[in-house]
Amino acid sequence: MLWSSKIPPHHGPLYTKQLTFHRYWGKRDPKLNLPTNSSISVTLSQSDLRTHTTAAASSTFPSADSLLLNSSPQDVTGARTQACFRELRALRAALEESDSSLPKLSQLPLRIVSENNFPTAAGLASSAAGFAALVRAIANLYELPSSPTDLSRIARQGSGSACRSLFGGYVAWQMGEKEDGSDSLAVQVAPASHWPTIRALILVVSAEKKGVSSTSGMQITVSTSSLFPHRAKVVVPKHMELMTKAILDKDFQTFAEVTMKDSNSFHSTCADTYPPIFYMNDVSKAAIRVVEGINAKAGKLVAAYTFDAGPNAVIYYEEENTAAVAGAVKSFLGGVDGWQSKDIPAGSPDGLDERAVQVLRDGVARVILTQVGDDPVRTQESLIGEDGEPVKK
Amino acid sequence: MLWSSKIPPHHGPLYTKQLTFHRYWGKRDPKLNLPTNSSISVTLSQSDLRTHTTAAASSTFPSADSLLLNSSPQDVTGARTQACFRELRALRAALEESDSSLPKLSQLPLRIVSENNFPTAAGLASSAAGFAALVRAIANLYELPSSPTDLSRIARQGSGSACRSLFGGYVAWQMGEKEDGSDSLAVQVAPASHWPTIRALILVVSAEKKGVSSTSGMQITVSTSSLFPHRAKVVVPKHMELMTKAILDKDFQTFAEVTMKDSNSFHSTCADTYPPIFYMNDVSKAAIRVVEGINAKAGKLVAAYTFDAGPNAVIYYEEENTAAVAGAVKSFLGGVDGWQSKDIPAGSPDGLDERAVQVLRDGVARVILTQVGDDPVRTQESLIGEDGEPVKK
Repeated sequence: MLWSSKIPPHHGPLYTKQLTFHRYWGKRDPKLNLPTNSSISVTLSQSDLRTHTTAAASSTFPSADSLLLNSSPQDVTGARTQACFRELRALRAALEESDSSLPKLSQLPLRIVSENNFPTAAGLASSAAGFAALVRAIANLYELPSSPTDLSRIARQGSGSACRSLFGGYVAWQMGEKEDGSDSLAVQVAPASHWPTIRALILVVSAEKKGVSSTSGMQITVSTSSLFPHRAKVVVPKHMELMTKAILDKDFQTFAEVTMKDSNSFHSTCADTYPPIFYMNDVSKAAIRVVEGINAKAGKLVAAYTFDAGPNAVIYYEEENTAAVAGAVKSFLGGVDGWQSKDIPAGSPDGLDERAVQVLRDGVARVILTQVGDDPVRTQESLIGEDGEPVKK
Repeated sequence: MLWSSKIPPHHGPLYTKQLTFHRYWGKRDPKLNLPTNSSISVTLSQSDLRTHTTAAASSTFPSADSLLLNSSPQDVTGARTQACFRELRALRAALEESDSSLPKLSQLPLRIVSENNFPTAAGLASSAAGFAALVRAIANLYELPSSPTDLSRIARQGSGSACRSLFGGYVAWQMGEKEDGSDSLAVQVAPASHWPTIRALILVVSAEKKGVSSTSGMQITVSTSSLFPHRAKVVVPKHMELMTKAILDKDFQTFAEVTMKDSNSFHSTCADTYPPIFYMNDVSKAAIRVVEGINAKAGKLVAAYTFDAGPNAVIYYEEENTAAVAGAVKSFLGGVDGWQSKDIPAGSPDGLDERAVQVLRDGVARVILTQVGDDPVRTQESLIGEDGEPVKK
């Protein structure tokens, strides 16, 4: 079998990092990664946060599938990764059966090489982007005709929120109702071009300020929080409806309010877990106070905070308010890394809570400036060379 | 009118500090301090935490009522203090009408002198003890036949949770249903003698670690938290039932679990407020991790954390587990003030989260060791001299 040397390794796409308004938490079926509530997220720009993945198949590869992430071999024997490989292989095998001229890629070992351009340890949910990129790259290698929504069902089994990362712009993950999870999938609410002026300033909390780690996870929240069912059944559906409309209407006031309230609600149910889960720390809370101060100065909502499963603050704002939001933060955090990537006009720290400003000065290691981003793109740049080996950089 | 010189100033009682399991939060009627849910608290020992209040009435006093707290004049013109004065005077006036031989104390200016033996700024809810002592002291001065439960209705109008501080032991505040608040009052679940072995270790967080203050209060929680109604209607009634039974059964396992879960639930609804309220900080969370570690080592619940409207941790335990709980904390916090008041046997820090231990070392200013305490007592020691002036100390 020499065909693998005749065709170049198949290129994976560049993958975008996503950050959620409404977060994925609680699994009604842990094996299938079925969520207890729907959620909406913003795909961030690939210029700033990117997972790049290349997939290749060849009979010359060792017989076991492999995955290299940022040059480190990863375990692919876990049930989640295996589920993705199995589902994608089954789709490829069906294609091969219907067209015998196709190479039998489904029977060959896979080699996946992946690189993030953002710090994995920064708590930026790299597994969502990672699994989405892995699924998209293999689907491209296999030349599957599957739509992003079809693929989202597969990516979901690797990492729940990965299903959303197959789209750019504003993306909803519909929780679905079926037991087999076939209706738990992602759809695009609106492309980035619909509302391109959304910006994000991420405050990455320094490692030494990360605080005390949590001893339990989402399954514990579902089984022990008295408040969680109310959030899942009442709060989130209302937020989904308001947020969808806010995005379609480009209504930043509602977008901001729902983003902040949903973040508060999510972290509340984590803290109501037994034992409690705390993702936010004192630095996160200081970021909230500063956002409140920025909004108070503006007399309206020009900034919105949200927190995922970690202390980093993501602050959304509209481009026209860059000075009032990012500029104000830069006025006291200008010394940390990350500002040089964008031209941020000077703002003022006047009127902001001095104590909160000091806590941020002491606890933020770097910032990331980014914005709503486009769909995943296919790139000609391969991380696997013609010889089938990872490209040395 | 010379009678005031003929009778000594009337002595107020010593008052106990209380700390709650189920906390008072949200007012269905802010004027009457009617709560949105019932609550249970433990009255702590007067040997360790005490408010001492003396009330006197005399025609020789300046015409305006006055209150001296820890030697500082306090404003008594607020509606809450005035409501207490008015209700107590009305009860006294009724007595005077029925027995014309009684001096007309209801028509005389009041002088109240009060002292706490615990740091007011430590966030130990001194206003609850303060209003309870004020009401009890005036009721004693007026020789009112009112029961503690009767007086709890009045104290509640001064500071909601003050109604519980009129009892020792384990106390419930029944929220009541009537619009006029007449059925919102405190009753004793059990006296301290029923379960005298409950101990409390309070970790007082240092001022510089207090974190970022909150910008809103309980009324905002009621009106903005989506999770709060669920807590008030579903979670707290269940906790009240479990806790009452746990106290009657002296069942520390349930006592501890409900105490911790209710604290988690309460602070969750605070964090779900818009804007969010954070009372706990990273030091508080480290205390939780250490309590979890102590319980894990014991293989059962021997310690329970709870937090009021501030970052200080209150850790309950039974006397027989003093070494395992207080001793373990002393093993790494022995250098701060407060241990010398009690003989705490050495425990071990082995197996506790090292990061959490370090956060506590950096952030706890002092400890208070105490236990469940008795009813308020009347004392012969007066804070007002025979001349009607505050006693100089």
